[in-house]
Amino acid sequence: MANAPITSPLTESDKEVTANALQSTLVDLIDLSLIGKQAHWNVVGRQFRSVHLQLDELVSAARGFTDDVAERANAIGVSPNGKAKTVAESSGVSEYPDNWQSAETTVDAIVERLEQVIRRLRTRIDETDKSDLVTQDLLIEIAQELEKQHWMWQAQQADR
Amino acid sequence: MANAPITSPLTESDKEVTANALQSTLVDLIDLSLIGKQAHWNVVGRQFRSVHLQLDELVSAARGFTDDVAERANAIGVSPNGKAKTVAESSGVSEYPDNWQSAETTVDAIVERLEQVIRRLRTRIDETDKSDLVTQDLLIEIAQELEKQHWMWQAQQADR
Amino acid sequence: MANAPITSPLTESDKEVTANALQSTLVDLIDLSLIGKQAHWNVVGRQFRSVHLQLDELVSAARGFTDDVAERANAIGVSPNGKAKTVAESSGVSEYPDNWQSAETTVDAIVERLEQVIRRLRTRIDETDKSDLVTQDLLIEIAQELEKQHWMWQAQQADR
Amino acid sequence: MANAPITSPLTESDKEVTANALQSTLVDLIDLSLIGKQAHWNVVGRQFRSVHLQLDELVSAARGFTDDVAERANAIGVSPNGKAKTVAESSGVSEYPDNWQSAETTVDAIVERLEQVIRRLRTRIDETDKSDLVTQDLLIEIAQELEKQHWMWQAQQADR
Amino acid sequence: MANAPITSPLTESDKEVTANALQSTLVDLIDLSLIGKQAHWNVVGRQFRSVHLQLDELVSAARGFTDDVAERANAIGVSPNGKAKTVAESSGVSEYPDNWQSAETTVDAIVERLEQVIRRLRTRIDETDKSDLVTQDLLIEIAQELEKQHWMWQAQQADR
Amino acid sequence: MANAPITSPLTESDKEVTANALQSTLVDLIDLSLIGKQAHWNVVGRQFRSVHLQLDELVSAARGFTDDVAERANAIGVSPNGKAKTVAESSGVSEYPDNWQSAETTVDAIVERLEQVIRRLRTRIDETDKSDLVTQDLLIEIAQELEKQHWMWQAQQADR
Amino acid sequence: MANAPITSPLTESDKEVTANALQSTLVDLIDLSLIGKQAHWNVVGRQFRSVHLQLDELVSAARGFTDDVAERANAIGVSPNGKAKTVAESSGVSEYPDNWQSAETTVDAIVERLEQVIRRLRTRIDETDKSDLVTQDLLIEIAQELEKQHWMWQAQQADR
Amino acid sequence: MANAPITSPLTESDKEVTANALQSTLVDLIDLSLIGKQAHWNVVGRQFRSVHLQLDELVSAARGFTDDVAERANAIGVSPNGKAKTVAESSGVSEYPDNWQSAETTVDAIVERLEQVIRRLRTRIDETDKSDLVTQDLLIEIAQELEKQHWMWQAQQADR
Amino acid sequence: MANAPITSPLTESDKEVTANALQSTLVDLIDLSLIGKQAHWNVVGRQFRSVHLQLDELVSAARGFTDDVAERANAIGVSPNGKAKTVAESSGVSEYPDNWQSAETTVDAIVERLEQVIRRLRTRIDETDKSDLVTQDLLIEIAQELEKQHWMWQAQQADR
Amino acid sequence: MANAPITSPLTESDKEVTANALQSTLVDLIDLSLIGKQAHWNVVGRQFRSVHLQLDELVSAARGFTDDVAERANAIGVSPNGKAKTVAESSGVSEYPDNWQSAETTVDAIVERLEQVIRRLRTRIDETDKSDLVTQDLLIEIAQELEKQHWMWQAQQADR
Amino acid sequence: MANAPITSPLTESDKEVTANALQSTLVDLIDLSLIGKQAHWNVVGRQFRSVHLQLDELVSAARGFTDDVAERANAIGVSPNGKAKTVAESSGVSEYPDNWQSAETTVDAIVERLEQVIRRLRTRIDETDKSDLVTQDLLIEIAQELEKQHWMWQAQQADR
Amino acid sequence: MANAPITSPLTESDKEVTANALQSTLVDLIDLSLIGKQAHWNVVGRQFRSVHLQLDELVSAARGFTDDVAERANAIGVSPNGKAKTVAESSGVSEYPDNWQSAETTVDAIVERLEQVIRRLRTRIDETDKSDLVTQDLLIEIAQELEKQHWMWQAQQADR
Repeated sequence: MANAPITSPLTESDKEVTANALQSTLVDLIDLSLIGKQAHWNVVGRQFRSVHLQLDELVSAARGFTDDVAERANAIGVSPNGKAKTVAESSGVSEYPDNWQSAETTVDAIVERLEQVIRRLRTRIDETDKSDLVTQDLLIEIAQELEKQHWMWQAQQADR
Repeated sequence: MANAPITSPLTESDKEVTANALQSTLVDLIDLSLIGKQAHWNVVGRQFRSVHLQLDELVSAARGFTDDVAERANAIGVSPNGKAKTVAESSGVSEYPDNWQSAETTVDAIVERLEQVIRRLRTRIDETDKSDLVTQDLLIEIAQELEKQHWMWQAQQADR
Repeated sequence: MANAPITSPLTESDKEVTANALQSTLVDLIDLSLIGKQAHWNVVGRQFRSVHLQLDELVSAARGFTDDVAERANAIGVSPNGKAKTVAESSGVSEYPDNWQSAETTVDAIVERLEQVIRRLRTRIDETDKSDLVTQDLLIEIAQELEKQHWMWQAQQADR
Repeated sequence: MANAPITSPLTESDKEVTANALQSTLVDLIDLSLIGKQAHWNVVGRQFRSVHLQLDELVSAARGFTDDVAERANAIGVSPNGKAKTVAESSGVSEYPDNWQSAETTVDAIVERLEQVIRRLRTRIDETDKSDLVTQDLLIEIAQELEKQHWMWQAQQADR
Repeated sequence: MANAPITSPLTESDKEVTANALQSTLVDLIDLSLIGKQAHWNVVGRQFRSVHLQLDELVSAARGFTDDVAERANAIGVSPNGKAKTVAESSGVSEYPDNWQSAETTVDAIVERLEQVIRRLRTRIDETDKSDLVTQDLLIEIAQELEKQHWMWQAQQADR
Repeated sequence: MANAPITSPLTESDKEVTANALQSTLVDLIDLSLIGKQAHWNVVGRQFRSVHLQLDELVSAARGFTDDVAERANAIGVSPNGKAKTVAESSGVSEYPDNWQSAETTVDAIVERLEQVIRRLRTRIDETDKSDLVTQDLLIEIAQELEKQHWMWQAQQADR
Repeated sequence: MANAPITSPLTESDKEVTANALQSTLVDLIDLSLIGKQAHWNVVGRQFRSVHLQLDELVSAARGFTDDVAERANAIGVSPNGKAKTVAESSGVSEYPDNWQSAETTVDAIVERLEQVIRRLRTRIDETDKSDLVTQDLLIEIAQELEKQHWMWQAQQADR
Repeated sequence: MANAPITSPLTESDKEVTANALQSTLVDLIDLSLIGKQAHWNVVGRQFRSVHLQLDELVSAARGFTDDVAERANAIGVSPNGKAKTVAESSGVSEYPDNWQSAETTVDAIVERLEQVIRRLRTRIDETDKSDLVTQDLLIEIAQELEKQHWMWQAQQADR
Repeated sequence: MANAPITSPLTESDKEVTANALQSTLVDLIDLSLIGKQAHWNVVGRQFRSVHLQLDELVSAARGFTDDVAERANAIGVSPNGKAKTVAESSGVSEYPDNWQSAETTVDAIVERLEQVIRRLRTRIDETDKSDLVTQDLLIEIAQELEKQHWMWQAQQADR
Repeated sequence: MANAPITSPLTESDKEVTANALQSTLVDLIDLSLIGKQAHWNVVGRQFRSVHLQLDELVSAARGFTDDVAERANAIGVSPNGKAKTVAESSGVSEYPDNWQSAETTVDAIVERLEQVIRRLRTRIDETDKSDLVTQDLLIEIAQELEKQHWMWQAQQADR
Repeated sequence: MANAPITSPLTESDKEVTANALQSTLVDLIDLSLIGKQAHWNVVGRQFRSVHLQLDELVSAARGFTDDVAERANAIGVSPNGKAKTVAESSGVSEYPDNWQSAETTVDAIVERLEQVIRRLRTRIDETDKSDLVTQDLLIEIAQELEKQHWMWQAQQADR
Repeated sequence: MANAPITSPLTESDKEVTANALQSTLVDLIDLSLIGKQAHWNVVGRQFRSVHLQLDELVSAARGFTDDVAERANAIGVSPNGKAKTVAESSGVSEYPDNWQSAETTVDAIVERLEQVIRRLRTRIDETDKSDLVTQDLLIEIAQELEKQHWMWQAQQADR
């Protein structure tokens, strides 16, 4: 098999910038989906059901976007890497605590991790403005959804 | 928050045996789902479309079972752990190769990893026969599906 | 009409053991479904909506299982009895309090009653291991679902 | 928790009349749904399948109406009571016979019990004409469905 | 175009009474749907998700009823008026506060406004008893749903 | 077969009044459904498609109501008669013209016939107020839908 | 409006033959659908539910075919006539008896009327073999369905 | 192509026992599905429709299980054989009579054949208890459904 | 029960010709559906998944047509015979090989058997041209689908 | 690759006649679908919405039939040709005007082009009567739908 | 409760620019949805049905976008304001006329108001190019849909 | 009818640039959809089924985008032209070969043509960056999908 069987519609340098943006987004999103499930299974407390269900919407969004991002990497001629080891080593998201967590701790932990993912995503939206408008458009779409979910998680911190 | 907010219908020793079986199954299945997606994104060659689609059925089954297993852990009073780091450190499944892979290599790699997961699963079916019949029933159901998929992957190696 | 129009695939003694297990399970599950509705209609407080909705999932599961259990009784040649009077007289579930109840009281009451049903169910799983594997399999399936729901109710007691 | 947390859109006397109508309707309908299931599981004879299926339509209607009636009780500031003991003690429907019943006996028993429920319902439609038009409208809707089902059961008695 | 292109099945005086009842109901319901959305977007606090979702059920019911009411106005030969200015000037519902609101404040505000709408609706049910039974029937149906939702909102105030 | 196999929840005189109301409504509605189809197949002109589709909504409503009305007749112990000959002889709706008709003529003909059906229906709503509230409620529901459709047909006559 | 606004793909004589076949089929099918409903509402006896449901399948098929046939008439430039008076005067189906009928009488009456419709239909299939193959194909399709239903009705007469 | 392209998770002796159980179950179930269709097409008499429909539920269940069983054979490394000749030669189900059969004869014939299939299935459940728990679980699931359907067929014999 | 409870719309000689055509088609199609499943379960090789799925489309079409053909036999007053023994003895399709087969062998075997079924079907289309146009139309419809599937199987033999 | 990889169930001369009929029908239908879309995008005027929607039904029918026709060509061993150049060169449908068109002009243009397609189709129905009844049946089905749509377009020309 | 419980991913000045764009878009869209319903209820004339239906597509789009816009405001840390009074005071859309309107007047009024909304929207697309690409992307999506609907309304003005 | 009945939200020069981009995209996409169908019907070889199905996804995407592009042209006041002749004369996609093609040749031909369409699309994305952001957004969305499909086709060339 040839080393690079998929050609790219981009120049070599645009491809490199775009590839980096996509690979790091992929890793962040896979980590977010694993963290979402971990929280989904380990939340306890009066708000259990509400937080439990909302976490599955986060996981569902994150999983859907990992597919979009990995497919986009292929579309620009780059092999995506989403293995457990790669995620454990290069994710930009803080490690989630072990064991059951109260609903309040869970909400705080998700708000904090969503902020990390969003901040890094906004940087990549800027970087891809020159390298590939199609990729940028995908990242914007992801940001729109995650920023919306970020509000919905943050809204739960208001009355403590 | 109390240390162990969920009570168990099992005795302490049965709970320990069952908990180990569930936690290691959880890790194997999460790894299998990540490997399935990695393979889904990186397969190339004439059989691309067929293997690409079949991998999503594997991922879909694996993801569904991770939920069942983690929920069962909770049901017996044990906190499940499915974080990226935990998976990278304790999975019983061989690491998947980096980069694009031909369809043949992909099929071989999946057959091998399914065999690993199934072999370990059958051991745990024996172990839980005494500790918890409800958990055993769940593991048998998982084995039935994975052994069926194992045949479907192996069937593709026959005419080389 | 003949006295026993349905034959049994079991021996007389296996049939008797199995019949007792099924009849008492039937009564417990009908009572659980009535209690679930009573709680669904009478819960009040900040967690109203969340508990109100979750109770309908309990009722839905309980109702589905009463059908499975009564049909299994017929399948082994036994007439099931699920009348109001029978339930009022022979249910193993504690009576539910009258009047509106706060969400916290409701959660506690459901956790306690689920524990009663599960404990009795596990005894019957042991008893039917010799008398009828098909019935045992059904009881295991019911236990799996009720123990899962038990965790979800119990999880809400953690942060008081 | 306050004794009566839900206010009423009715005057105290209208509320009392309406509450009685709703509570007794609730009990009758729960009993009807339990009887319907009992008959569904215990009917035998050439008409088995036809009667078995038709009984589930009766149960489905009865169950749906119990929700409407209990919710209406809440809406006028009254706590509904649908526990097994309450049903066993205060239902206006005759007790259903034990054991398997032929299809003919089943049809006769259902026709008779539907007549009881309908007769009592029509009295309450008159009583609520002054106390609450909204409740009356709900009772009329229930009567329309039960009288229709009553015809369909009675139609089966014609050619004996 | 003629001034009044739609004829009426009612006498002139019945039509006037009925028209007033319908027009003021229309305005109240449009306002209720706008308030529901305003609350849906501005609620914050631990109960955020639960209240956020419940508000969309209120909006959905209110929007459906505005169509029924406006269509009924046409059916009796009257042009309905549901413009923003008309609503702002003639609604019988109190203005909703600006800015984000805690879940508790939101629940209180909705309970209060539902009471206003229901009280006015009950007056119109009396008024249309003589003028148009068909319109009355529609208003009764609306009252039934809003009184049910009123209970569900009020139930959340019980345990403070 | 007995002469009157279905009993009635009404007194003999109430039953007679109600039966007449239902039988004449049944005939009018069947005729309306046949006229609707005749118009559906024979309309021509620029507005063909719009009128053609709208006629099927009229037919669909009319057909649904014939079932409700005939079932209600049975529910009060009366045999409904909806044969072609009965409709041709006793319908209160004017005969529809033969051959293709322009869209304008079609609209006028439908408006006129809907007015006939509605006028007769309103009389029967008055008549059944004393004899049977359940039947009256059904006739009110039919009037609500037909008066709504009447507006929609009449609305098309406005700008000629 | 012109007298014949729709042109025909057929010669004048082929059109006449085909038009007659379609018009008489239309009338028979409308009558069959009215008879089916009349029987559906008036059947009584032990087989009530079974016959009641089967009649609606007959009505549903007949109604669907009336649309096909009337549309085909238009497609060959002929105005279809399906008014109550036309059906009463020109249908080839025997009048259905008044009042409730036992299930046996109902089955016999439907078998007899289906035979009448089928016999006439087979004649028209021969007549249109020369005049219009497209119309013939539609009549064959109708015969296939009605002959199938005829078997299903006749099968019920076998064991008396 | 290699002789045995699919490996087995079982030891050679366990595989042989399990393979025999699966192959004979496969043949019985295919025969049952063919017999079910034969009966479905050839039943006549007053109960035609009811028996005709119920037979399709039997066929549907039987067909679904043949797939499960054949796939399970593959999963343990055995080629399943479901050819017409194999079924005709090795099925354990009695031959079904030729020609149309009355509903009563049909019910008796199905009850008898279901008993044959169930008796043989229960033997295999015992045999696979040692050889393969996963296969046993599948056979238990099949027995549960067939024994339930057996009751439903037998219930129709009660009132002769 | 009478010997021939279903009458025929055909003359005795037309009925005999048509009956033979339908009975032999029924047997061929049942055999084709069994062969399709046998191949579905036993195919191996790189094209496994593609051929495995395509075979289920063949089975699904064949099964659907067996119902149409057997119902048509009844509709012309003939009892259809689709028992395992009848198929094994009178099918016109060659026996399928035992054991797993490579995808290429499978494709060749299906192409060959489809050709056999189609050739025999075309003869029967000619034979029924005089005896029964309705049956001929059904056979034409079956031929259209099988010839289409024949192309799709043959297309896979092109590049060897 | 072989020159003609797909065999034919027809003789060489029947195949040639049938192939010509199918190829020219294919081209006409593709052109009709392109013209339908062109008209769909370019219609303006008061009847815009109605004509715009109706055109999509034409396109949908035409597209569906192109698949049927091209697949039938393959089924008789002929390669279908539906390329833009082939359509532009050999279609029997008049070129559609450029630019926006009023609704009236659009209706006239579609009526005229449908007449062209239908006239040519009827010739081919005659030609294939001897060469291939299966193809003829497909062409008859297409004619039935297009002649129905032709009426619906023509009906709009009636009242100018 | 804190004054501003939701943080923003934007700088203070970018947030202000974006907030203004979103708030004024929200008000315009709510007004558009109210105007759409007002027109939907008050249109009369030959084009009634067509315009009536098309207006609901406008309302449906407008309502969906108000949710997107209000959620985006929250996502950037701004409380959206969509109250009746706010809309009445700050909408950029001209007031809609009172009373029934002919279809022509309705079309003109909608075209004019859509132009107003689009013109203002395009200004905001420019303004947010610097302040927030994610918001800009949402506004572009809204413009795409409204400009498409604007064409469809304008297309109806062409042939007067 | 006026020459340009649809106004534009763009300046004259922006409109011209944008119109050219849209018209040439429209032609390319229609050609792509016709080529996709031609390939769908003419592919042969072992990979037939896989390529056959994948081509329909290409056609489905291309057809959907032609609607979006043509509607966008209208939205900016330009009449789109998608006639067969226009496509044959101005498409930027190479002509597809006649006759059946092997799966390999088909894959190569599609990869090549997708590259042509994508290259031209990327140029137009640059051109519309200044003229119309709304159109640019649509073209970016099309590029994203086609580049993804391009990868999926190219992936199949890797292992030859």
